[in-house]
Amino acid sequence: MDLIEALNWRYATKKFADKKLSDEKLQKILDAIALSASSAGMQTYRVFVIENPDIRKELASDSFNPQIVDSSHLLLFAAYDSIDQEIIDDYIHFVARERGLAVENLADFKKSLESHLLIRTDEENFIWSSKQAYIALGTGLIAAAELQVDATPMEGFNSEKLDKILGLKEKGLKSVVLLSLGYRDEENDYFAKLKKVRLPKEEFVIEVV
Amino acid sequence: MDLIEALNWRYATKKFADKKLSDEKLQKILDAIALSASSAGMQTYRVFVIENPDIRKELASDSFNPQIVDSSHLLLFAAYDSIDQEIIDDYIHFVARERGLAVENLADFKKSLESHLLIRTDEENFIWSSKQAYIALGTGLIAAAELQVDATPMEGFNSEKLDKILGLKEKGLKSVVLLSLGYRDEENDYFAKLKKVRLPKEEFVIEVV
Repeated sequence: MDLIEALNWRYATKKFADKKLSDEKLQKILDAIALSASSAGMQTYRVFVIENPDIRKELASDSFNPQIVDSSHLLLFAAYDSIDQEIIDDYIHFVARERGLAVENLADFKKSLESHLLIRTDEENFIWSSKQAYIALGTGLIAAAELQVDATPMEGFNSEKLDKILGLKEKGLKSVVLLSLGYRDEENDYFAKLKKVRLPKEEFVIEVV
Repeated sequence: MDLIEALNWRYATKKFADKKLSDEKLQKILDAIALSASSAGMQTYRVFVIENPDIRKELASDSFNPQIVDSSHLLLFAAYDSIDQEIIDDYIHFVARERGLAVENLADFKKSLESHLLIRTDEENFIWSSKQAYIALGTGLIAAAELQVDATPMEGFNSEKLDKILGLKEKGLKSVVLLSLGYRDEENDYFAKLKKVRLPKEEFVIEVV
């Protein structure tokens, strides 16, 4: 399926069929997510694959999204809750190692990261990291659709509760957005048959000549 | 090119060759962007194609990103600076028209949008809309790569200045992120030959069993 076909095929699935995603497909989706573009390449977020049914049930109990339990797999994107000198130092060392460079060769890059990131508040950096996670969410949606796997991004959940359940604070992370994966229950999902609604291009795209 | 190949092929191009993107390819990238997933389908952002060379020069003058002028095309993602009752009403009417439904049939959907969006501050809704734009940025990056078009997302620019130049405030929008499109100058772009650095999957993906 090409990209435009895949984007037209996908929709935010409301009702999932009782059918499991193969681990092979899950890994392909995760591979694509891990390759997503990310500001300065820093990947300041993580992806959790929440298989534990009790956690999913607990999380669904105060959400309007039954897909949290009904889908085959539940992913969570969680972003760094702050960025400090140590995170930058570690990243610079990692890049140097991966590219076979001396750390000194990355001095300008390091300075640029410091001057941009360390002057911001934790909240500003968390929002910045969250935005990077949304790029990856977009990649995950496309990866799933190209494999004809259905997916639903979900912002409506109790993120503080999930942070606690998963002990994210201790990991320096905060929940951002969920992504359910699985297969649509075409018969019973009213939304499966609805026309995709998108703004006409002449309204959505504005040319500045 | 399949998705994983495309993601491996792409990188944040630093030096663009003096070569124009065809309008056909540009339109394909814009089509993909317009089909991106967006919370509640609302698409609370717009995409500007900035062709005007004077605006690009002016914008580049206080940015560390020469790609603003050197690339073939420059896109801007700009998000709604606020969301009010009128925006929700217009959207509900648009969905009803597109799907041949009576507006009354969407009463629950409308109430849900109101209860989520109208209680937030303008700043919170702008951040939310910006995140949706980042999903679209991710889609645009993939669409470009699959066409072997190079691209660079850029956060480092004077967004207030650009808002003024484009009169975004009057349109209810604020600049979010730029995307340069074109073709890499492989000979002269040091970054074209560097190894892509990504966290090992076992560090990036965390399983909760």
